[in-house]
Amino acid sequence: MTEVVIAGIGQTQVGEHWEISLRDLALDAIQAAHKDSGGLKPQALFVGNMLAPNLSGQAHLGALIADYAGLTGIEAVTVEAAGASGGAALRQGYLAVASGMVDAALVVGIEKFTDKIGAMVDEALATTSDSDFEAVQGLNPTAQAALLMRRYMHENNVPADGFAGFALTAHMNGVANKNAMFRKAIKPETYHKADMVSDPINMFDVAPNADGAAALVLTRRDLLPSDYKNPLVKIAGSAASSDTLALHDRKDILYFDTAQISAGKAMKQAGIILDQISFFEYHDAFSIFAALSLEAVGFAIKGKGWKLAAENEISLKGKIPCATMGGMKARGFPGGAAGVYQAVEAVTQLRGQAGANQIANAKFGLIQSLGGPASTAVSHILQRMD
Amino acid sequence: MTEVVIAGIGQTQVGEHWEISLRDLALDAIQAAHKDSGGLKPQALFVGNMLAPNLSGQAHLGALIADYAGLTGIEAVTVEAAGASGGAALRQGYLAVASGMVDAALVVGIEKFTDKIGAMVDEALATTSDSDFEAVQGLNPTAQAALLMRRYMHENNVPADGFAGFALTAHMNGVANKNAMFRKAIKPETYHKADMVSDPINMFDVAPNADGAAALVLTRRDLLPSDYKNPLVKIAGSAASSDTLALHDRKDILYFDTAQISAGKAMKQAGIILDQISFFEYHDAFSIFAALSLEAVGFAIKGKGWKLAAENEISLKGKIPCATMGGMKARGFPGGAAGVYQAVEAVTQLRGQAGANQIANAKFGLIQSLGGPASTAVSHILQRMD
Repeated sequence: MTEVVIAGIGQTQVGEHWEISLRDLALDAIQAAHKDSGGLKPQALFVGNMLAPNLSGQAHLGALIADYAGLTGIEAVTVEAAGASGGAALRQGYLAVASGMVDAALVVGIEKFTDKIGAMVDEALATTSDSDFEAVQGLNPTAQAALLMRRYMHENNVPADGFAGFALTAHMNGVANKNAMFRKAIKPETYHKADMVSDPINMFDVAPNADGAAALVLTRRDLLPSDYKNPLVKIAGSAASSDTLALHDRKDILYFDTAQISAGKAMKQAGIILDQISFFEYHDAFSIFAALSLEAVGFAIKGKGWKLAAENEISLKGKIPCATMGGMKARGFPGGAAGVYQAVEAVTQLRGQAGANQIANAKFGLIQSLGGPASTAVSHILQRMD
Repeated sequence: MTEVVIAGIGQTQVGEHWEISLRDLALDAIQAAHKDSGGLKPQALFVGNMLAPNLSGQAHLGALIADYAGLTGIEAVTVEAAGASGGAALRQGYLAVASGMVDAALVVGIEKFTDKIGAMVDEALATTSDSDFEAVQGLNPTAQAALLMRRYMHENNVPADGFAGFALTAHMNGVANKNAMFRKAIKPETYHKADMVSDPINMFDVAPNADGAAALVLTRRDLLPSDYKNPLVKIAGSAASSDTLALHDRKDILYFDTAQISAGKAMKQAGIILDQISFFEYHDAFSIFAALSLEAVGFAIKGKGWKLAAENEISLKGKIPCATMGGMKARGFPGGAAGVYQAVEAVTQLRGQAGANQIANAKFGLIQSLGGPASTAVSHILQRMD
């Protein structure tokens, strides 16, 4: 199979972009990625988007964004898998280039939460749950995560502030990321005093919905411009897996099967073992998701994922650095763009361009994009080539 | 590149399925395709859907349908490109198998219009137009098609009943299709007397929104079950192209660039010329779309596509048979499923299983799925192998 490299990356700041439209936001990220790639012209566009038909009244984003980016005529499509839409779009772009049918693919993640407010956002988010069995009962994604977190705390004797480490690490890492939504470190007391969103999930256990766009240019190594300057990063592994949307159908609600399966397949394809992974960009939409992801991938045994955070082992100098640029908690959660931000940040690390947040000698990065409570998981291993 | 065959096909009847849920409808088509494929187990699911987040309050269809079909764990994703969602899902499935990463892919098209009624359907459909420049002005897809048709009639001196042939052919071909929504032939007088929907589009110039699901199993030839019984059909060509959503940005609103580009690429890949195509499943959501598609692909010169219909050349025994199982007009238009129905019907023709509607010696079929006024076009050439 064809080797696929990530030639260009681009991102906008994550935040509340009331003043800029969906298509303009996407364009900013695309232009940055295009420039970063050395000017590669893509033949295909894969848009990762979660909720624009509801949030922005706009479907058919593929053609819309291709045209707005001056790429009229190329093939273009939207890829959706709830919160994993960004990772899923990356995978489709990867398959297109790997198939040999597409020389260069543009992957764009885009979401604009500020096109709607309050209950309308909740209603849109509820469409990602099982509408017939969960959403209809009022179980929105945050309430669903609260059920998981409560059960996890009960089964594993986790103290009230047991999850604080996830937020502390994320916000610490967000400080130096100029594209992060929040750039202020928080103290343990701040976590302790935080208001509840859906008990036991407090303000710091849930990532903020936000606007943002991120973009990647994928191609084959032999098609890179002759004057290509960036250290080269390739996609060494790519895999996805699905599970039930509704929790009641799971054998064990506290084990993210899809996170395990997809990460395992991606590592197998990359020919590496867990110890070789330099950092893990997990899907910390909720801190309980981060804990369960660490366990499913194998960085912690079942029930002990939270301890990695509590013992500072997910920090930049820890055993397995996570959320290295702030993660969803501090960088922000721009829905279908989140998985593409992970890739942009991982490439930044692997190129050695992560500045104050740089992981020394980063060679393999694992990024994992989840939809719902890991109803979808898409995992990629990115590798520095040298 | 790997050769990809369509091993299994399945479809539900198209119509108003008030009594059956979205997931049940999908399951019916999947089970039929699974059986037809000789029991192949897919590793990936590509769901073509246009509007379920709005119509059915349900996004994240990939994981939902994979689970409901007993395929929990496989990778699954939704592909959206407005009315071309079905064709786009087929293309993603094709790329996945062609890449060598997926042995067997399940492609499912699904839409359930009856989950909403009246103005709510119009509102959902409007999300496929340019929300900032067209939908906001109240220009819905039918009104947009009416502008095209009026201009076309003016420029080409088309008489009032000039488009009747498209509806007459479609309804004639729908009679023998047990999965069609309408199975009654109509007379020229019926077309002539039909009420206007959006002048000059009358009731017979627009395909009925409807519920339906269709499914395909794609695989490599060497992975077919040893007792595989169906005449073999392969995907000989696959291509897609995009254009502006809004009409005001087009150089020529009466030429479907994307239909030309994608069909041309697909034919080039298949190594065939236009004359070798036995039938054309066009995207007749509106009769004006059918006329413009015939011209863009090259079956008629510009401004004369309507004459092929008027002169009965698109009938089963005509120069280029179209809508051979009733097309969107008579079989019905189940949104994101429409492009998958085209593939199911084309395979039926190429296998020689089309009964009363059989095209003699059909060897190559062109299917084309459009999103908006050809803002997206996805074309596939299917080929009988023998």
